[in-house]
Amino acid sequence: MNDSIILKAADNVRILSAAMVEKAKSGHPGGAMGAATAITLLFAEFLRFDPKNPHWEARDRFLMDPGHMSPLLYSELVLTGRLTLEDLKNFRQFGSITSGHPELSVEHGIENSSGPLGLGQGMAAGVAIGERYKVAQFGDIISHKTVALVSDGGIQEEIAYGIGRIAGHLKLSNLIFFYDANGVQLSCKTADVMDQDFKKQYESWGWRVLEADGENVEELRQAFKAAFAETERPTIVIGQTTMAKGAVGAAGESFEGKVSTHGQPLSGAGASLEETVRHLGGNAENPFEIFPEVKEAFAERLAELEKLAAAWNAKKAEWDKQNPEKAKTLASWLNGNSVKLNLKDLAQKDDVATRNSSGTVLAYLAKNYRNIICSSADLSNSDQTQKFLNETRIMTPGDFGGAFVQVGVAELSMGAIACGLALSGGLYPICATFFVFSDFMKPVIRMAALQGLPVKYVFTHDSFRVGEDGPTHQPIEHETQIRLLEDLNKDDGRPQMLVLRPADAAETTVAWEMAFENEDSPTALILTRQKVGALPCPAGTTRYAEAAKCRLGAYIVSDNTPAGKKPDLTFVANGSDVLLCHQAAELLRKESKNVRVVSMISPKLFRIQDEKFRNEIIIPWTPVYALSSGLPVLFKDVVGGFGKVAGLERFGASAPASVLENKFGYEPDAVAKEAMMYLAEFEKNVADFKKVNG
Amino acid sequence: MNDSIILKAADNVRILSAAMVEKAKSGHPGGAMGAATAITLLFAEFLRFDPKNPHWEARDRFLMDPGHMSPLLYSELVLTGRLTLEDLKNFRQFGSITSGHPELSVEHGIENSSGPLGLGQGMAAGVAIGERYKVAQFGDIISHKTVALVSDGGIQEEIAYGIGRIAGHLKLSNLIFFYDANGVQLSCKTADVMDQDFKKQYESWGWRVLEADGENVEELRQAFKAAFAETERPTIVIGQTTMAKGAVGAAGESFEGKVSTHGQPLSGAGASLEETVRHLGGNAENPFEIFPEVKEAFAERLAELEKLAAAWNAKKAEWDKQNPEKAKTLASWLNGNSVKLNLKDLAQKDDVATRNSSGTVLAYLAKNYRNIICSSADLSNSDQTQKFLNETRIMTPGDFGGAFVQVGVAELSMGAIACGLALSGGLYPICATFFVFSDFMKPVIRMAALQGLPVKYVFTHDSFRVGEDGPTHQPIEHETQIRLLEDLNKDDGRPQMLVLRPADAAETTVAWEMAFENEDSPTALILTRQKVGALPCPAGTTRYAEAAKCRLGAYIVSDNTPAGKKPDLTFVANGSDVLLCHQAAELLRKESKNVRVVSMISPKLFRIQDEKFRNEIIIPWTPVYALSSGLPVLFKDVVGGFGKVAGLERFGASAPASVLENKFGYEPDAVAKEAMMYLAEFEKNVADFKKVNG
Repeated sequence: MNDSIILKAADNVRILSAAMVEKAKSGHPGGAMGAATAITLLFAEFLRFDPKNPHWEARDRFLMDPGHMSPLLYSELVLTGRLTLEDLKNFRQFGSITSGHPELSVEHGIENSSGPLGLGQGMAAGVAIGERYKVAQFGDIISHKTVALVSDGGIQEEIAYGIGRIAGHLKLSNLIFFYDANGVQLSCKTADVMDQDFKKQYESWGWRVLEADGENVEELRQAFKAAFAETERPTIVIGQTTMAKGAVGAAGESFEGKVSTHGQPLSGAGASLEETVRHLGGNAENPFEIFPEVKEAFAERLAELEKLAAAWNAKKAEWDKQNPEKAKTLASWLNGNSVKLNLKDLAQKDDVATRNSSGTVLAYLAKNYRNIICSSADLSNSDQTQKFLNETRIMTPGDFGGAFVQVGVAELSMGAIACGLALSGGLYPICATFFVFSDFMKPVIRMAALQGLPVKYVFTHDSFRVGEDGPTHQPIEHETQIRLLEDLNKDDGRPQMLVLRPADAAETTVAWEMAFENEDSPTALILTRQKVGALPCPAGTTRYAEAAKCRLGAYIVSDNTPAGKKPDLTFVANGSDVLLCHQAAELLRKESKNVRVVSMISPKLFRIQDEKFRNEIIIPWTPVYALSSGLPVLFKDVVGGFGKVAGLERFGASAPASVLENKFGYEPDAVAKEAMMYLAEFEKNVADFKKVNG
Repeated sequence: MNDSIILKAADNVRILSAAMVEKAKSGHPGGAMGAATAITLLFAEFLRFDPKNPHWEARDRFLMDPGHMSPLLYSELVLTGRLTLEDLKNFRQFGSITSGHPELSVEHGIENSSGPLGLGQGMAAGVAIGERYKVAQFGDIISHKTVALVSDGGIQEEIAYGIGRIAGHLKLSNLIFFYDANGVQLSCKTADVMDQDFKKQYESWGWRVLEADGENVEELRQAFKAAFAETERPTIVIGQTTMAKGAVGAAGESFEGKVSTHGQPLSGAGASLEETVRHLGGNAENPFEIFPEVKEAFAERLAELEKLAAAWNAKKAEWDKQNPEKAKTLASWLNGNSVKLNLKDLAQKDDVATRNSSGTVLAYLAKNYRNIICSSADLSNSDQTQKFLNETRIMTPGDFGGAFVQVGVAELSMGAIACGLALSGGLYPICATFFVFSDFMKPVIRMAALQGLPVKYVFTHDSFRVGEDGPTHQPIEHETQIRLLEDLNKDDGRPQMLVLRPADAAETTVAWEMAFENEDSPTALILTRQKVGALPCPAGTTRYAEAAKCRLGAYIVSDNTPAGKKPDLTFVANGSDVLLCHQAAELLRKESKNVRVVSMISPKLFRIQDEKFRNEIIIPWTPVYALSSGLPVLFKDVVGGFGKVAGLERFGASAPASVLENKFGYEPDAVAKEAMMYLAEFEKNVADFKKVNG
């Protein structure tokens, strides 16, 4: 398009952005107006997509980091036919596609959910890595560019470094950032908080750095051309823009560059929407319009894109013919559900840590599937993702064919990249670290859940039994913490995340099957550092068959209660605590107690089963004693009104694991003793209750 | 000391480090051995402390970022008389001071707890900012240097950027990093994950970058001299070191530079402790020895330091005389408990958001106390720390007298700096952001709790009522999440953290009083974005007096139950849900129900009160209905066996808050209706229970 049309379209975008925020009485107009010229140019001349097929695998991806700049994205999506003016009028209203911060909808051209600043940069890098990996497998036919919009706030986030470093190290030449440098952030001018040399910073990380006046179409065009043509390095285009470009007050006075226009309607900042619309050449009576010449220009662009996509489709059909095997594989990847595990015959050793049992599965996955990408935050030899790596190789700038990404010690970046790998399509990311460091990843695990991405997390070293490394390395509150995301439901009642803490090798195998059955939300596996023995197995079956019952959240591991009677006590636990409870149960059984032991790999999964099943596993109003390696609140929801959960209500300590098990009461006799005390307490509670509700 | 003594002492440190890991059968010898020369030089010639007074306010601070390199720190502390060889033999044993990762003990020269990589850099920056602030108040008399050890892993953490940027922006010339660049990390060579130009990177952030051969004492000395003399910028000394320097196998073959020596005893890596000790000039029979010449040299150094401290003490006494007011103020700051609030007469408006009520207190604090430092992650105008800022000014490179630190959008860095400010002594840090972004801060909030630091967190925008910003900005699981740290107990049973969600302006005032009464653990205030009305106030008292009852965790806000009778229903809630429950209760009271409403600012604080009190507030085994704005698990522990907690078990949505209140059932009539249904459920449960426990 010619420059004047681009500028006209950008003003149109400014009008729409300001108008939708004003109508919603809420939102962020300033940034959207500032970056309008650059982003409009991108959509008008650079980004390649198929107007007829939003899921086109070779489309360029445009990811948002600053989700608050959503009016800009939504306006561009109207210009390019993926959203309607009506959608803009419903900005920030219940159920509308145009939510306050963008929510993933490839159908509508929204390639990622965004909001918490910084994470979008990592998702973009993940998409770019995914593209490189797939190109390494299938060739250039499916190559595309990934472009991310980054703001002043986002570029301050710590993760900007993690992603800058990793993308630079991997020489991701298919990744382009547009940095909207407008010098104004939500609460102040950027000069109050930063004065670094961005060019030097990104160059130190191996990026190509281009600078452009954010209002000079030709400068921007040349920068984007260079970025799209780059073959050696990721590129960041630093665009000097003006916050609230075009905003004026009632008397026509400028409101450009004001902090106040960042996070509220223009009228809230004292400016005038009407005057601004007029000033930008629009219709103050109805700002929700597309200028005719803009409409025409974008219609031409769409026609051009359709042709381009049609040409690609023809080329792809040809490629399919010439590469029937590859074509079949690619299609199977892109159709989803391509990793279907049946690990019944996978040999597992007993008496190893569940992280090792997981390692066995990881080796199997690497050997048998090419669309799983594994990462570790510099702990591969400890979290056992090394077993995966042993079957493949690390990704390097010269060779993207390896299915292992070494990210270094950068948990949050790893998590964001994993989201991006999932977003890129056809790939299953696995990422691993110590469970305690899941803290660093929380913001992005939440984003994986919110976007329904099938990322798999391997969290090893799952309790105080980490031992000598001490309290900084011993997860206590973490299992409950991560399960808070499991407590959130999708519209259909299924959990937004699956968290599995398997009790032995067989359950670990099954947990991995469950992780890959869970196609539309993230799954975390919580694994031990220390050895665990196999659970008892009834005659005539196998541990694998028993462990398969984990799919209902919980099952009975052992029970000496005669048929028709109720247990005197039911133990509930997961992970390494199940065998411990079984050992305690054996002690109580010697004292003629009828004791049931339940392994509960996921309390939430159990809670969403039907009542009949639940009441068979945990008989209501009977004594239930649950044991957590961390906080007791973990099982609070399943033990019933008279049940009890024991756990650890303190930070850990530095000492050998066996010493801590002794000090903290995690030995069979101690557990048996506590359980007996609970039974006495149960009786007292029942008596007290009857006094009140006799 | 002369170079040969430094090298000798460094070998001594290597021997001790390797030996203690070997004895503990666990730990990280390689890094400690690599950095031994540089760090020994620092302790031998640069770091200034008072051997007689570990708490000396003007001591230089040495902070660890890589806590796994603890053997190095502990060995240096033996050389300088703060630990004993016996302590080293007890490395990683229960109850010993020499835990796997260092745990804060100024008494023993351990200036911070460390472990999760990166956070130590932020704590060091915080200490340095604290020093600059105090020097601005009191003059150079209390100036000192802050030195941090940083490793390859730590420098990869995202926070390295946040801290690098902020320290560079503030031109913290009193801050020195020694970057132990040994090229090897836990799972691989650093070249596998990074190849950036560190010199350029830190220079782009405004740092002075010096490079030195980590084994060349004179090069290191010149670098440290320059760093200690620097007056314009923070300095990073990049020391090229060798992992496991001096480690050999049984046949004398070198084990230097091997990944395998990073995280396990030398013997585990195939090397020989005995041969290594011999190779380094030690006694293989008893490696836990200090070489006589090293002992002598450090004794001289300690004598020198005593003189230096004595001279300072004399100078300080003189200063005290000449600055009696300042001296008194400084002493009061350093003695702790210097902010004692009685806000009874502080005027608060009703019908404002609790973030605004908090803002009123913040303004008061800024006006009346000079040892409170406030920060916001670029949300001051929204989280209302702007009210604090209005009474002071932002800290700038040329003026450290302002009590507000603008950190930009960098929540984790802000949290780490806050820890450092608290560690620096005499200062109370407050830091603020939206509650949902507390996710980014979790790792460092945990470290604040672990170290018992009185950091205050202001988390605003506390529920789905954030409204239009949508699910990425609406905390759901977060209140339960942050309270998991509150669930952890100190040895005396008090919580490791205090989390307060006040219900109205009066409770907000009291919450701030409680925050400053809590001297030895962090406190978080959870505040609303939206307006809340004042709670009802009984005749003859004030809301402030009523709200003061928050100190016991919970109190009765309203109750129409006749004396001697039990309520038909007790509502429990906190924050904005209390008034909602009261409104629902009023509806039920119209239908002749006896309903009690309890405001519970902190369930944990309530749970640790004596049973008698608890049973007066919530009568056991009676119907209790709690309402959470987030996950129901929040109040699970206080409602009793037949109680129920309602909450929100889904991600939020983008829409005006009032629309969401309607959709999600947070309106008085909806709550009243749900409560009535619960009463029916209660009856059914009682009947079911009796069937089982007749």
